[in-house]
Amino acid sequence: MSMIKNILFIMADQLRWDYLSCYGHPHLHTPNIDKLAARGVRFDRAYVQSPVCGPSRASCYTGRTVFSHGATWNRVPLPVGELTLGDYLRPLGVRTAVVGKTHMVPDREGMARLGLNPTTELGMIISQPGFDPYERDDGLHPTPLLRNKGGMLRYNDWLREQGYEGENPWNDYANAADGPDGEILSGWHLKNSNLPARVKEEHSETAYMTLRAREFIEDSGDTPWLCHLSYIKPHWPYMAPAPYHDMYGPETFLPVVRSEKEREDPNPVFDAFMKMEVSEVFSAQGTRETVLPAYMGLIKQIDDHLGRLFDWLEETGKADETMIVLTSDHGDYLGDHWMGEKELFHEQSVRVPLIICDPRAEADATRGTACDALVEAIDLVPTFLEATGAPPADHRLEGRSLMPLLRGEVPQDWRDAVFSEIDYAFYAARETVGVGPSDARAYMLRTERWKYIHFRGFAPQLFDLEQDPDEFSDLGRHPDYETVRQEMHARLLDRLTARKNRVTMTDEGVRALRRDEDTSGIMIGKWG
Amino acid sequence: MSMIKNILFIMADQLRWDYLSCYGHPHLHTPNIDKLAARGVRFDRAYVQSPVCGPSRASCYTGRTVFSHGATWNRVPLPVGELTLGDYLRPLGVRTAVVGKTHMVPDREGMARLGLNPTTELGMIISQPGFDPYERDDGLHPTPLLRNKGGMLRYNDWLREQGYEGENPWNDYANAADGPDGEILSGWHLKNSNLPARVKEEHSETAYMTLRAREFIEDSGDTPWLCHLSYIKPHWPYMAPAPYHDMYGPETFLPVVRSEKEREDPNPVFDAFMKMEVSEVFSAQGTRETVLPAYMGLIKQIDDHLGRLFDWLEETGKADETMIVLTSDHGDYLGDHWMGEKELFHEQSVRVPLIICDPRAEADATRGTACDALVEAIDLVPTFLEATGAPPADHRLEGRSLMPLLRGEVPQDWRDAVFSEIDYAFYAARETVGVGPSDARAYMLRTERWKYIHFRGFAPQLFDLEQDPDEFSDLGRHPDYETVRQEMHARLLDRLTARKNRVTMTDEGVRALRRDEDTSGIMIGKWG
Repeated sequence: MSMIKNILFIMADQLRWDYLSCYGHPHLHTPNIDKLAARGVRFDRAYVQSPVCGPSRASCYTGRTVFSHGATWNRVPLPVGELTLGDYLRPLGVRTAVVGKTHMVPDREGMARLGLNPTTELGMIISQPGFDPYERDDGLHPTPLLRNKGGMLRYNDWLREQGYEGENPWNDYANAADGPDGEILSGWHLKNSNLPARVKEEHSETAYMTLRAREFIEDSGDTPWLCHLSYIKPHWPYMAPAPYHDMYGPETFLPVVRSEKEREDPNPVFDAFMKMEVSEVFSAQGTRETVLPAYMGLIKQIDDHLGRLFDWLEETGKADETMIVLTSDHGDYLGDHWMGEKELFHEQSVRVPLIICDPRAEADATRGTACDALVEAIDLVPTFLEATGAPPADHRLEGRSLMPLLRGEVPQDWRDAVFSEIDYAFYAARETVGVGPSDARAYMLRTERWKYIHFRGFAPQLFDLEQDPDEFSDLGRHPDYETVRQEMHARLLDRLTARKNRVTMTDEGVRALRRDEDTSGIMIGKWG
Repeated sequence: MSMIKNILFIMADQLRWDYLSCYGHPHLHTPNIDKLAARGVRFDRAYVQSPVCGPSRASCYTGRTVFSHGATWNRVPLPVGELTLGDYLRPLGVRTAVVGKTHMVPDREGMARLGLNPTTELGMIISQPGFDPYERDDGLHPTPLLRNKGGMLRYNDWLREQGYEGENPWNDYANAADGPDGEILSGWHLKNSNLPARVKEEHSETAYMTLRAREFIEDSGDTPWLCHLSYIKPHWPYMAPAPYHDMYGPETFLPVVRSEKEREDPNPVFDAFMKMEVSEVFSAQGTRETVLPAYMGLIKQIDDHLGRLFDWLEETGKADETMIVLTSDHGDYLGDHWMGEKELFHEQSVRVPLIICDPRAEADATRGTACDALVEAIDLVPTFLEATGAPPADHRLEGRSLMPLLRGEVPQDWRDAVFSEIDYAFYAARETVGVGPSDARAYMLRTERWKYIHFRGFAPQLFDLEQDPDEFSDLGRHPDYETVRQEMHARLLDRLTARKNRVTMTDEGVRALRRDEDTSGIMIGKWG
C-alpha cells in the first residue's frame, strides 16, 4: 500500500456530532462537509477522551487517554516528556504545524528543570505542543488575558492591516457587535449572540484560519505536511459575521432534549453541573433562541470555507495525496439535559463527528459509507502513523489505527466499549459536591447498550441506550441493575489497567530483553 | 518543630522483613539494627510498591506508584520528566547522593528528545536518577555486562588497589569462591553459596559501601545531606566473605512455608511463576540448605557494619541531627510458596522491614515501639519532605508522611489498605500464560483481613489473612467469596483512580485557577 503524503487534520471546536447535514441535521446544510463524507467514511460512533478542549486535544495529539498524558484540563500543562504528533512525524520529514487552536499550556517548570529554554526552536516546538511554529491561536483573547500574555496576537496584527484599529480587535471587532446607540456589545454576553460581528465575513477568524492553512500548504511545496487546521468556532464567544448571523430561525432548530425526570433526585455530580450558571442560563427561556442562530451560522461558515479549500486542493492535485480528517474536540449541550457547555458524558457532549477521506484506491470500497464501530479520539495518532508509514508505538499509544475500517474491514477484536474521563476539579461543581482537587474525577464507559459513568466518591450513572436513547432515566442507583453496574465496573477496571504507562520501552524491547538476559552473564536461579 | 538536618536512608536489597531479630527471627541476631529499632519506630506492616528492585526503588525515590512513574521493571528507564528526591531536596541545599544501588536506567531517548546531554552535570543527575554523582553501583557486574557498559567500576578499581588483580575482581573475587582444585567457583551458581567469597571481609561490597557512605558524610561537612546507603546484599549472587559464610546452620533456619495445597489447581499466573527455573531450583532439596547460610550471613555482616557506622554517628554528634531509615526494596521467597526470588505478592516478597529513628524530642514517646499501621514505600518521600521542611507536593506524591506515626498519632483517616503492582512482561511466566507485553500486569490490595490480587486477564487470588496467615488457601475462585471479591475489586478501582497524574499543577494551583478566571476576561455562560 502506498503511503499518504499529506494530512489535513481539521478540527472545529465545540462542534456537536448532530449539527451537520451528513449526520442528519434537517436544516443546517453543510454540503461541503457532506461531500467530504461522500468521498470518505463517516464514523457514527466517535467519542472524545474528555469532553473539554485541552485534555481532549492532548489525547488527539499524543494518542493517549487523559490521565495517561496528564494534561487533565485546559490550563494544566502537558508534561514535557509526553510525545506528540510532531515527534512521530518529524523524523519522516513531515512538516507538522497547527493553524489555530490547541488549548495547550507549556510545561514551563518541567522545561526549566531540564534546562530547556522555551525561546529556542526546540523549546518552541515542545511548547505548542510538538507542532512547528506557524499560526497557533487559541482563540480566547479577552483584553486582560491578552495583556497578561504580552499583547501579541498575529490575527490582531492582520486585522489592523485590514483597517480594524485598537489594542485588541479580536475582542472589539471579531467578537463584538454594534449596539443600537453606537455602543459596542460584547460577544462574551450570550444575549448578543444573534447580532452580527463587527468584522466582515472575510476578516473573521474562520476566514483567516482557512487562509493561513492554505498559505501553509502552499509554502510547504513538495515537502510532506500535516496541517492541523483547528477552527476556533463554533466555540463561544458565539458571534457570527453577517450574513451567517441570521440564517437560522427557530423553525430550523433541533428540539431541546431534556426531561423533568432528570431533575428528580439526580446524581449529585450531575446535579451540581446542572446548577452551574452556564447550565441555568442555557436552561432559561430565550437563550437557545438567541445562541443557536450564531452557533449554526458559525458551522455553516466553516462549511463554506472548507468548500473553497477542498476545491483548491482538488484543482492543485493535492487532494490525491492528502488524507483529510474532520472532527471536533467535544460537543455542546446547548440547553439539552438542562446543561450548557460540555464536560459531562451525554451524547451531546462526548460524541463528535468524525469523517476521514483517504484518497488511495484501497479505500474506494468505503467511500460514502458510514461506520458504526466504536472509535475514540486516541485512534487518530495511530491512524496518522500507519497512513504515513511511521513506525507504530504500541507501548505508548492507547488507540488503534482506523485504517482497517477505512478499507471496510472491522477487525474481529475491535473494541466493544469506548472510554472517556474528566478532571472536574476546576468547576464550581467540585465545590458544590465538596471534594478535593484530586478527587473530582469521573470515568465513562459506553458499550453497545450501556453507558456507565463512575464518579469517584459518588454513585454512578447508568443509561440503557437501547431503551432510553435520550439518556433521561439514570439507572445508577436502581436496585434492579446491580449486576449490570458490577459488570460495567469490572470492565472499567479492565480499561484502567490497560493504560500504556511503560512509555520508555517498546513491546519489542521487552521481548528482546528476555533474550538478552542470556548473554549478559546474569544468571538467576541456576544451581550450577 | 525543628527540622531534620540530615537523612541516612539505608536500603538492603532483597532483605525479608522477618530476617532481623527485632522482627522476630529467633537465630539471626542483628543487635545493631535492633538498637536502631529501640531508638525509633518499627513498622510491622510496611509494603513495597512492587516486589522487584527497579520499580520498587523508583517508587521510593519518586513517591509514586509504579504505573504512575513508569519504570515498571529493572531495565525500563524512569521517564525523564519524573521528579525524584534530589528535585525536592536540592532546593533546600540538601546534598542528595546514592552510595550503592538504584537499579535505575536513564531515559536516554527522552533526554535526547529534549536536547539533554547525559555527560553534563544536569544530565548525570537526571540519569541516576536525581542523586548527585557520588558512588552509584548497581551491584550486578558479570563480565559481559561490565564490558558492554565500558568496563568502568569504581569498586573494581578499589579492589585492584587492595591487590585483587584482573579485569573484573567484582566477579572473580567478591562474588566467587575457591574450588578444591584451585579453580574459581562462581557466585552465580547457587551450589557455591555456602563457600566463602575470595575477598577479605573488609574488602567486600558491604564493607566498601559503608566506608563510602562514611566518606560522603565526612565530606559533606556542615552541609545538610541525604545519604542513600543502598547495600547490594543480601541480594544474589548469594556469597558472603568469611567468617559470615558459615555462621548459620540448618538449626537456625526459619521453617519453609509451603503447602502441597498450593500446587493443587493453582491460579494460572502463580502456577507459571512456580514453574520458572528459579522457583523449581529453590523448591528442590538442598537449595535452601546451601543458600540460607550465605543469605543470613550477608545480613549479619550488614548489621555489624551498620553498628560501626551508627557508633561513629553517635560519637561525632551527627546522630542527633540525622533521621535514620532502614528498609528493603522487597523480600525473597527462598523456597517459600514453591518460589524463588520475589515478584509475586506473598508476605515474604511484598512486605519489608521499615525502621525509622527520628532524633527529635517530639519522637521520644514512640522510641522502641512497633507500629502496625499499613504503610507503603511511597510514604518515604513525603516523610523526608516533612522532616526537612520541604514544601509538600500532594498533586504528585501518592503516599503520606509517616511523621504523625513517629509522634505516636495515627490519623483517623489513615489508609485501610496497601497497594502493590507488577509488570511481569519480562518473565518466562508471561510466555507461559501467553499474554502480550502490555497485558502482563497484576495488582495487589491488602486490607486488615484480605489480600486480593487482580491479574489482568485471569482469575484473581484472594487470601483470608485472619484464617490463613500463611496464604495457602487461594479463595480467588471459591464460590462463597464472590461478595468479598467484588468489594475488593471496587476498592482496587478506587485506588487506581486515585493515582496522581495531574503532575504539572499543584492542588493550590487548581484552587487559584477558579479565582483567576474571574479576572481573565473569560466569561462562560453569562447572559449579559
